[in-house]
Parts: sequence; structure tokens; C-alpha cells
Amino acid sequence: MTHNVIILGASGYTGAELVRLISSHPEMRIQALSADRKAGREMSEVFPHLRHLELPKLQRINDIDMSSADLVFCALPHVTSQEVISKIKHVVKVVDLSADFRITDVNVYKKWYGKEHAAPDLQKIAVYGLTEFYRDEVANARIVACTGCNAAAGQFALRPLISAGVINLDQIIIDLKTGVSGAGRSPKENILHAELSEGSHAYSVGGEHRHLAEFDQEFSKLAGRVVQVQFTPHLLPANRGILATVYVQGNVNEIYKTLKTAYINEKFIHVLPMGEHPSTRHVRGSNFCHIGVVADRISGRVIVIAALDNLTKGSSGQALQNANLMLGCSETSGLLMAPIFP
Amino acid sequence: MTHNVIILGASGYTGAELVRLISSHPEMRIQALSADRKAGREMSEVFPHLRHLELPKLQRINDIDMSSADLVFCALPHVTSQEVISKIKHVVKVVDLSADFRITDVNVYKKWYGKEHAAPDLQKIAVYGLTEFYRDEVANARIVACTGCNAAAGQFALRPLISAGVINLDQIIIDLKTGVSGAGRSPKENILHAELSEGSHAYSVGGEHRHLAEFDQEFSKLAGRVVQVQFTPHLLPANRGILATVYVQGNVNEIYKTLKTAYINEKFIHVLPMGEHPSTRHVRGSNFCHIGVVADRISGRVIVIAALDNLTKGSSGQALQNANLMLGCSETSGLLMAPIFP
Amino acid sequence: MTHNVIILGASGYTGAELVRLISSHPEMRIQALSADRKAGREMSEVFPHLRHLELPKLQRINDIDMSSADLVFCALPHVTSQEVISKIKHVVKVVDLSADFRITDVNVYKKWYGKEHAAPDLQKIAVYGLTEFYRDEVANARIVACTGCNAAAGQFALRPLISAGVINLDQIIIDLKTGVSGAGRSPKENILHAELSEGSHAYSVGGEHRHLAEFDQEFSKLAGRVVQVQFTPHLLPANRGILATVYVQGNVNEIYKTLKTAYINEKFIHVLPMGEHPSTRHVRGSNFCHIGVVADRISGRVIVIAALDNLTKGSSGQALQNANLMLGCSETSGLLMAPIFP
Amino acid sequence: MTHNVIILGASGYTGAELVRLISSHPEMRIQALSADRKAGREMSEVFPHLRHLELPKLQRINDIDMSSADLVFCALPHVTSQEVISKIKHVVKVVDLSADFRITDVNVYKKWYGKEHAAPDLQKIAVYGLTEFYRDEVANARIVACTGCNAAAGQFALRPLISAGVINLDQIIIDLKTGVSGAGRSPKENILHAELSEGSHAYSVGGEHRHLAEFDQEFSKLAGRVVQVQFTPHLLPANRGILATVYVQGNVNEIYKTLKTAYINEKFIHVLPMGEHPSTRHVRGSNFCHIGVVADRISGRVIVIAALDNLTKGSSGQALQNANLMLGCSETSGLLMAPIFP
Repeated sequence: MTHNVIILGASGYTGAELVRLISSHPEMRIQALSADRKAGREMSEVFPHLRHLELPKLQRINDIDMSSADLVFCALPHVTSQEVISKIKHVVKVVDLSADFRITDVNVYKKWYGKEHAAPDLQKIAVYGLTEFYRDEVANARIVACTGCNAAAGQFALRPLISAGVINLDQIIIDLKTGVSGAGRSPKENILHAELSEGSHAYSVGGEHRHLAEFDQEFSKLAGRVVQVQFTPHLLPANRGILATVYVQGNVNEIYKTLKTAYINEKFIHVLPMGEHPSTRHVRGSNFCHIGVVADRISGRVIVIAALDNLTKGSSGQALQNANLMLGCSETSGLLMAPIFP
Repeated sequence: MTHNVIILGASGYTGAELVRLISSHPEMRIQALSADRKAGREMSEVFPHLRHLELPKLQRINDIDMSSADLVFCALPHVTSQEVISKIKHVVKVVDLSADFRITDVNVYKKWYGKEHAAPDLQKIAVYGLTEFYRDEVANARIVACTGCNAAAGQFALRPLISAGVINLDQIIIDLKTGVSGAGRSPKENILHAELSEGSHAYSVGGEHRHLAEFDQEFSKLAGRVVQVQFTPHLLPANRGILATVYVQGNVNEIYKTLKTAYINEKFIHVLPMGEHPSTRHVRGSNFCHIGVVADRISGRVIVIAALDNLTKGSSGQALQNANLMLGCSETSGLLMAPIFP
Repeated sequence: MTHNVIILGASGYTGAELVRLISSHPEMRIQALSADRKAGREMSEVFPHLRHLELPKLQRINDIDMSSADLVFCALPHVTSQEVISKIKHVVKVVDLSADFRITDVNVYKKWYGKEHAAPDLQKIAVYGLTEFYRDEVANARIVACTGCNAAAGQFALRPLISAGVINLDQIIIDLKTGVSGAGRSPKENILHAELSEGSHAYSVGGEHRHLAEFDQEFSKLAGRVVQVQFTPHLLPANRGILATVYVQGNVNEIYKTLKTAYINEKFIHVLPMGEHPSTRHVRGSNFCHIGVVADRISGRVIVIAALDNLTKGSSGQALQNANLMLGCSETSGLLMAPIFP
Repeated sequence: MTHNVIILGASGYTGAELVRLISSHPEMRIQALSADRKAGREMSEVFPHLRHLELPKLQRINDIDMSSADLVFCALPHVTSQEVISKIKHVVKVVDLSADFRITDVNVYKKWYGKEHAAPDLQKIAVYGLTEFYRDEVANARIVACTGCNAAAGQFALRPLISAGVINLDQIIIDLKTGVSGAGRSPKENILHAELSEGSHAYSVGGEHRHLAEFDQEFSKLAGRVVQVQFTPHLLPANRGILATVYVQGNVNEIYKTLKTAYINEKFIHVLPMGEHPSTRHVRGSNFCHIGVVADRISGRVIVIAALDNLTKGSSGQALQNANLMLGCSETSGLLMAPIFP
């Protein structure tokens, strides 16, 4: 059975990544692609790496008839996303890659994103799209809000530990390193090659990164109390990849066992043997997440490290995984390709 | 139908790339993997990006029973390759990724590779593996010698032009830029990150690169006369990708039409619209080759630029393409994945 | 004796590079820095790597009193440069880093830069700033037009050969590879890190690059006849560095001797031993240019390779070298620092 | 006055960096260079970026007469360093860049470096070379042991805070990111370009990195009690630069004021305005260290970030700074060059 899908925001990196993944999906057909500023152009002009595919031309969102689609992937900036999604016919399923429907509490949304939410009704029914932890809800959802890429990495490392109560909830630090593709394709001085290559720096230091809204919401819900983590992202001179080095306090064997057990049946999450830890290079271009656990020399201190590709498992791969569930396809369809190394 | 294949030299980059590609091939099963110095180890230790796959342990070549295999991929260094292949049972098909069986004339082989050929009988029956130009021979071959990665890029740009007689055979320059993965995984000072990143240099300047043996052999055969090209490779601070900037003299429309016609039915070779030219980024991780043709401001001078991924279309992808033909699989099986960008 | 200098366009890469170089110049003092869009800000905000220096705040050009300066470095975009320079008091010397005063013939300027020249009178008195070849004129000039960075690399390789008549003037190809800092600091999609890293592509293919105007002017002047070269620049995934691989036809010994002799007394130009060739890494951050000569296997074909740092010898270093002559300082003042490797 | 210096281990990166720095030092002359495996070769063959300098040929250590030198820089591997230094005449001053004389307690040395110390007498008189904190001792020392590059970065961030007692000594985490040049020039698989570029990973996780021996020794001495920090280094796909993200607990204003005051007169250490934080790019190639302080959203948590160039301030620049003091030169001689950006 072939499902017709539409990708809104196809001229950005997550849009292109969706096309790449769907191109090897046996049951999906791309019915339309939107890119308002590049409407009328071929996708191969905007992303020449996709020139071997037969794809519809880029269109303005308003020129696309979404009513006959089975599912719409919305890879638009936040705020725009709300507006567009609130106009989509109610029978069409939506996977949103923006931040607009991740935060349940409209006041929290406003605090972090600086704007009143324009579609609070839809926000109520949207499901948080971290597939491994919301599988049933996703399968039955009309709207799924994919997680932030950093938020995904941090949660894969921490959710089972918080649920199981095996770590000190007041001493969690996520020191995260991320590739630059997460910053998008809109030209800005700070993401030029000449500004970024051959070095590194932190950003949004001190608890300013918006993905903290997701950490707060999810970790507090799991713990049944307020949990606040420290989160310091750093920019790597690399395009893809997130490495989350998570500092926790607890018993290393309990921590390891908890993670190992939690992910034992997960196709995309690999807990490495105790003491080993991952590299972003080994998940590049794939939907896999590798997690390592190492005991510190200081007793009771443990380092959990999670690696994933921000554009795949952190974003478009996660989106496709959710879409698979929503459309009744196999969850792993189009997502089992091996990482590319070197 | 499932074909059992063996990969010799699985701890190198081309070996790992074969595993990556075959992992999504519907009709191949990896029966054994060799790596003499790393025998006994799991592939996931040597290449952690492949840890999601169930793979046989690495073995010594001599411990592998090749007699029941349908095909052996030999990704060993040259010289070693000859020795190993000459011991493989004659019913087993072989795709060799080394240089050992590329050169028909044993004297030419000796001149470029500095050694007497140890298996001249096999060399006689080996087929040169540039699939698009030796399709029938490959399909019927017992031994296929995959081309050099640079040799592939140069030939895709030039073969149809030489065959059609539309360029001056005495004024051909191939200025080539290649990623560092082509230099292999054996540690050497000159391929350290600190030596290579953030710069570029030429190497084997002046006609010293061994892939010239292939250019000489193939181009002279096509032209029916001796053809010698200038070939200057450069190392890029990048892992994958070859960009061959080829300077020729002829009529640009004839040249364009010749290339366009030659590749019109080829799934992996894309001739871009006249005046456009390719980037290595847009073929990364894929089996595609993009070719562009641009007229110079000087009348009668034309620039043909070919881009491919040295590890895929330049090596392991080409090998799998040949194996598909040899085993009666669809030629594109396991090879249609989209490039990864960014 | 201390010379007061002003840098216009200090928020770009060549402006910052001038500050870096002048900071270790014993006889220059930076009197003012301009950056219209960033006026009022500290240089350390715009370029934190210069925070150890005591520098004047960034100002609008119109707010700077240039009359008391000894020399103005103009690192503005072309067109703007003409306008600004034509307003500077005639006793103040000017080193212009833009393209505005490089081309003697106003019709040629218009052809390549698409605009009528606004200051043809000044263009007449401007001296082309390739120091090693215009030393006396530069020393006596009021306005010096620094060369294009690619134009510098190509000319260092070719000028002595054309002057000496030792190469075929109709068969010159410059295949050039350049770092991305030459594209400037203004945000554009095509120079984002995610677009550029890990790959390479050609640009301005077919004779479209504006530095050809300089090659045409200078080479034709040297030869006393029209000389047109082929010139294909490529972008490297690196910030600094130009590698010009120049294909010429002639006698290798004559070519080598001509270059060796031409540069025997030059402090910044190093002709490597015959058969050796340079790397951009070995001139990074310095004012040096390394030149190598290699004979091709085809008799009569020679490869000359020149490497320099586009921001230093190709631009701001060259500018300072010229300023030194104009102000009566030692030509090498502030310019002898060693390259940075790795 | 000119001081004669010798560099042992000149074929490694720290050796070459010493030559680069000393080349612009007004009062030092390089008398000899050693490199046992490359003895007899010119430095310009081994490091072509230094070809503009007149340098002595590389020699075997045993062939060098050190007795007439004023100071020997020893850039050899540890263990070798001990042996060589113990044979140097007692009137000659030594700056050692290895780990051999950093650790006062021979048992601690043995624990971390796995070998009995061969020169315990010299170890007793060696001064720990973190110049800013051991200025007087260094000035009077015969042997100075330069610090580990990571150890330098961590200590610049933490020493004043530990001395002042303004942070919780039991909750210190150093999450550090370092460029690959710190791993040296000896070929190893894990530092190949193809293994490292475009990604990141942690190493020596869990408290295994030898620079912890320095942290333990120095911090415990400052605090007057045992202090153990958590320290997790990560490898960046970059050649130079260390970014130490240090998580501490205390009052942010006290912390900021303590650092600001501590470094108020230091030429090489810049404490950024409160809330700002550094990038490795902005210290590249220089002897500067930039330090930033940011309050976390969680009250009482503070992030201190230090950036320096591992080869300069972290190693060879520090070595020259120490040598300047030992020889009575100005402490900043040869060390005030601006960083290179981009």
C-alpha cells in the first residue's frame, strides 16, 4: 500500500533529509514539496544530491492541495508551523518537526518561545514524538511533535534512569556537542565555514537553550517532581552529529542495567558494552543512537554518553519513524540503512 | 535467492563500505569476513558504525572456507591480492578491488607496480570492471578487476569523448582532487588529521600516479593509438569524494551531446544540464557519478568535470555493481540509496 | 618613526588580518577603524581574537577624519571603494584592497565589473600592487591597488615565464584551489559550513572569474601581445590558502631556472628544489609564497604550483608590504612571522 | 644579549612550534635541533612551513654538544625525557615539555605513568611550569616541567577559585574538548584524518587521563586537602585548541570577581566580561588564554570556560614563557603575536 505524503519546508536540511529517507521507503510516495521562497524550482536545483529522484517541483504552501494526502511532514520554522498546521484538514495526519507542539503548557511555550501559542487546541492533542517512549500515543495521534535534536539525545541517555529512580535528580549535567546542520540553512555570519571550522565554542550557556523546555517537561513528568538539569551545548566543526556527555550520580551497575534493560528490544538504540562509549562518526547518516556508560574514578559518579545524528534520529529519521507508526507501516521502514563511515 | 559472499580485507575502508552496501542488499548474505591482523575480533570493534548488523567474526584468510561461497570480494592490497586469488577454487567468482588484475600487459604491470605479476594466467581472463563500459564481459567473468577510484572518475569524463573522436587526444589534462579515505586506513604521517586538515597539496605530480597505467591502457585501446594524458591528483581535506576537472579541446556542443547520449540510459551516471557542474558533496555515500560540461571563454576549449565518491562508485559500489551482474542480480541492487548531504 | 594608518572596512576578514599584522609592526599605529554597520562597537566584539589589543572603536567612514593619517587601507567592497577613495584628501596615501583600481582600462573594468568606473582619474594614477614586480612604482605611488588573491598566486607562477618567453603563451591553464575566507564574511548560503565542509567543487568555470581581467591585463602587457589563460577556481573545505596548479608547455630546466633566478633575492617567494611542490598548509598565516616546478612524463609539459595564504600574501600581507614601501619602512616589517602548522 | 638554545625533539609538533615562536624572539638563537630518527635531514624537509628560516640540521641527541647552550628545550616523549635530561650538564637550564618532571611524588608518578622514575633527584628540584602561578620559582629554576596542555586549561579556570575557597571542592567537573595536534605526530590509526574529521568522541573517560595527576597534585596543594575533579576530554575535528567547560558550584559574582582579580595584571590571561565566553578559534596560534564565566539558571551553579591553544599556551608558548624568565628576558618576548582567525 502506498501512502501519499507531503513535505512542507523542503528547502531546509530536515526537509531534504526526509526526501533522502523516503526515497528508499517502499510504501511512501512524495506527493508535493513546499518551499515558499523557492517555489517553481526543481528540488534538484536546491539540493543537487537528490537529482536522481523524480520529485514534484517546489510549490508555495498555499498552492498545495493537502486534502488528499495521508500525512504531512511539516519542516517549517516554529510559529509558521502553528499557522500552517492549524489550516490543514482534520483528517490529514501531521508530523511536525518544529518546536511548536512539543510543549504542553502554553505558558511554558510562551516563556521559552516568546509568543502566545496560536493553536492551543491542537497543542492539546499533539503527541510528543520521542517514539521509543510514546509508541502507542504516536500510533494513534493526528499530530506528532518531533523532539528537539538535542532534547532527543539527552532524553535517550536519561529517561530510563529518571524513571527508575537510580540517579540523583538534582545533580544532572548535560554537556552536549553538536554539528552545525542543526542551525539550519538560512545564512548567518556565525555559521559560515570560515567562522566555524577548526574550533569549538559553547552557546546558549547557563540554561538558555530552548530544548531545556523539553527536558524540564519530560523529566519532571517522569520523576513526578520538578527536575532541572544543567545543559550546555557546544558547536562542533562538523555538519552532523550530537554527542551528549551526561554527568550523573548513582550506582554504575544499576545505571548500566537500567539502560540496557530499557533498550533491549529497541532496534535503533544500542547500549554499548559497559565501559565503552560512542562517537558521532559511527551513527552519521543513520537512525541509530549509541549509548555508553562509564564509571568515574570518583565512586558514585557516572558518565553516560549518547551519540546520534541530529538530522536523522534527532529530526527527520525520528519523524519518519513516527509517520511509519501513524500510517501502519513497519516502524523501521526506510530507516535501517547503515551509518556512513568514514 | 540469496548469494553467499565473502569479503577479504574487511578491516579496511573499502571492506567496511562493502559491508555497509551489502547490508541493504536483498539477495546477498555475508558468509565470512577476513582481516589477518585483527582476526578473532568482532567487526563492531573494528568498525563500530556497523554494530547494528549481525556479522561473522573477522578471520584469517587461511581459516576461511571459500569453496561454498558464490562470490569473493577481495579488498586486499595489491600483490597480496594476486597470491590469495590464485588459491581460490575456480568455480568461485571473484571481484578484486586491488590493482592486481587491472593491467592486461604484464610488462606494463611490472613497470608501474614494480613487481613481476604472480598470476599471469588469471590476469588474462580478468575483466576490467568499469561496469558501464564492460557490462557483458563482467556478467560472464570469473574475475573482475575493479578500477582505480581516480581512474574511474577520469574515464567517466573521457571515454565517450575518445571513442567518438570529438576531442584532441594530445591535449588532455586531468586535474583531480580526492578525499583522503582513498589512501587507506594504515597509519602514515602524511594522512594524519593534523597534517591534512585545512589545506591542500598535489601528489604524484608529473605523471607518477599508478592510475595512469589504466588511463593509458583504456584510452589507447579506445582510440586505436597511443593516448597519454596529463594527470595531477591533489589531496582534499575531506574524507570522501573525487572531483576530476578535465581540460579538453573540441567543440563544446559535440562534447556535451556525446556525453549526454552515452549515458542517457545509465542509472548511476548523470550528465548535468549544459553549463552546470558537479560537487563531491552531492554524491557522497552514493553510487552516482555527476558529470558537467562547460565551455571555456577560449573557443575550442572545454572543461568536463566528474564527481563521484571514491569509496562507493570509485570502489566498493562499483564492486557490488559488478557482483550484481556476475550473480544475476539486478545491477542496481543495494546501490540506489541517495547521497548524504550535508 | 610611527605612521598613523586607518583601516576602512575593519569588520571583514581582510580588515581583521590587517589589524593582526599591524599589531606586530614596530612603526605603525592604527588611528581609526571603520565598519559602517557595526559602528560604535569595539573591535573585540566583532573579532574576539583581537581582544588583547588596544584599538579604536569602530566608526562610520564619514565620522573619521582621514586628513591627519599617513596612509589609509581601504578594505571595502568594490564600487564602494571608488566612492570613498575619491573623497580622501590628496596628500593621504591609499592602499586599496578592492578590485576598483586594478584594471587600467575603464572599458575592461566595466566589462568585468558591470559598472562605469566612478573615479577614472584616480584609476590612471593607481599602481598595480604586486609588490615584487612593481616595487619602484609602489614606493612612489599615492594609490596602490592590491591584486586579487587568485591573481597573485597565478602571477607569481607565471610572470617570469611569460617575460622570459620560455612557455607557450597559448596553452596555459591555471587550475586553482582556494580556501573560503576569500569569499568574505557576508552571510550567503553557499559559504555556510554545512554547505562547504567535506567536499569540493569548481566555480566561475569557463572563464567567468573576475581575476581573469588581471591575468589578461598583466600577461598581455608582459608578452606584448594578447595572452588569454584558462582559469578554473575550486573551493576547498578550508579557510585559508590558495594552491594554483599551473599547466604550461616549455622546457622544464629553462622554466625552473627562470623562476629560481627571478625570485633569488625575494624574501617572500621561495622556489622549492626542482621536483618538489608546495602545500597551502605550509604558508598559512604568513606572507610567504612557495613555488614548485615538476616535469610531466610527457616531454615539454611542465607543472608549476604556487601556494600562498589568500588573506596574507594574497591580500592584507601584500597590502602591508606595499604600505611599507610607500611609507619608507622596511618592506618586510611586520611580515616575517612564520606560518602556522599544523 | 643572545641566548643559545637547543631543541630536543624538533620533529614533533611542539618542537616545530618552539621553532616558530623563537624565530621571532629577539634574543634567542637556535644552536641545535635534535630528531633521532630524522637525523641528517634539514628541518625544512620535516616541516616545510619553516623553510624560510636558517636552521641547523637535525642531529642525533648524542651528537649534540649541550654544554655551551644557555637552555635546552626538551620536547621528547616522557621516560626518554628523564634519561636525556639526567645527562645534561648541571649548569645548563632545561625546560621540559614532557610529563616527566610534573609530578612531585614519585609514587604518584609511577601510578599514572606506569614506571619507576629514573631521575628522582632532578624531580625534586624541578619546578612546575604554570608560569602565572610559579613565576618566582621558574625564574630561579634549573629545570622547569611544563604542564600538560589540558592541565593548563583546567588550572587557569580553577586555581584562583580553589585558592579563594569560593567553590564547592567536591563538585567540580571539567568537560574538555581538544584538538588533535595534542596527540602528536606519530602515526596511529585513531588520529588519521579519515577517522577524526566530521565528528567527535570522548576519550580516557572516567578519570583515566594522566593530566588528572596534575589536577590532583595542584588542586590538593592549593586547598590543603584532597581535591578530586571529574575530567572528561573529548577530541575535536580540529588541529589546535582546547576548550575546558568547567562546572562549579558557588556564587557567580564571587567567582567572577575572584578570576578577574587574579588575572588583572596578566598579559596572557583575559577574563571576558561577565556572561561572555570564549572560543578556541580566537586564541589559535597565540599564547593567550580566554576565560568566561556564566551563571547557570540553577542558582549556585556556574560555568567557567577557558580556551587556549594546546601547542602554544598549552605547551611550547608556555615553555618559551618559562625560558624567558629563566634567561632574564622579558616574559612576553616572542609571545605577543595575535591569534590567527579565520
